[in-house]
Amino acid sequence: MAHRHRRQTAPLRWEGVDVRAYKQDAGAPFRDVTRQVLFAYPALASELRYFEVSPGGHTTLERHEHMHAVVVQHGRGRCLVGDRIVALAPFDLIEVPPLAWHQFRADDDAPLGFLCMVNAVRDRPQLPDAEALAQLCADPAIAAFIRA
Amino acid sequence: MAHRHRRQTAPLRWEGVDVRAYKQDAGAPFRDVTRQVLFAYPALASELRYFEVSPGGHTTLERHEHMHAVVVQHGRGRCLVGDRIVALAPFDLIEVPPLAWHQFRADDDAPLGFLCMVNAVRDRPQLPDAEALAQLCADPAIAAFIRA
Repeated sequence: MAHRHRRQTAPLRWEGVDVRAYKQDAGAPFRDVTRQVLFAYPALASELRYFEVSPGGHTTLERHEHMHAVVVQHGRGRCLVGDRIVALAPFDLIEVPPLAWHQFRADDDAPLGFLCMVNAVRDRPQLPDAEALAQLCADPAIAAFIRA
Repeated sequence: MAHRHRRQTAPLRWEGVDVRAYKQDAGAPFRDVTRQVLFAYPALASELRYFEVSPGGHTTLERHEHMHAVVVQHGRGRCLVGDRIVALAPFDLIEVPPLAWHQFRADDDAPLGFLCMVNAVRDRPQLPDAEALAQLCADPAIAAFIRA
């Protein structure tokens, strides 16, 4: 394997890194999110990705057995993790534990960009069914967040 | 596991994250480097650490079977990876392949801070012996870099 040094070609865009759609699954609702895979190799047990949510956009509300380890890099927003909503700023660290419902939202007037480390071998995300949604929405703040 | 959101308490210092000495090994030469372990859990196959090299400081010149996946966050510097020396700026991506000699150096007038992802299970670093050093120093630019 050759060493590689990849500079930015524009802010938070890199040489040789494709800017991809966040998800391929048609059934998973999200809005205005891009995904860039920064590091993914057989020799690495994890992948490091950079996600960017445009102003007013959001990731899919989902959960899974694998963890997320997130470092905010850019912009402003909020995330729901489990039963808590927190405001996000650059360099904040967020852990998403196994099976915690989670969603990231950019503010309406700013993007939100973050690094996310995940295990290379991981389970597929689950979407909330009607019962799970009803449980989440029992908290008015969470209801407002996920319906925003 | 509870979710955790950790904000900065100062630039690139975080709530509940100890600022540690870079290495415990007395035999591994380095200068003015701190280490902060941002994410390390049994459920994560990798760890994410933040290293900061003070102006004029450097990490240990070493190699190992495991890879490094690095994202620069702060400051300026240079790194040697294999037989190449590259200048570093925030958000640059650097891959250190298995068994590539590597060292990170901050510029004399700026710190250098970077995230480094590594496999949780990994081999110990090797230091260069006299023969490896002589091979590296056959390139005058590398000789100047590692002796700086």
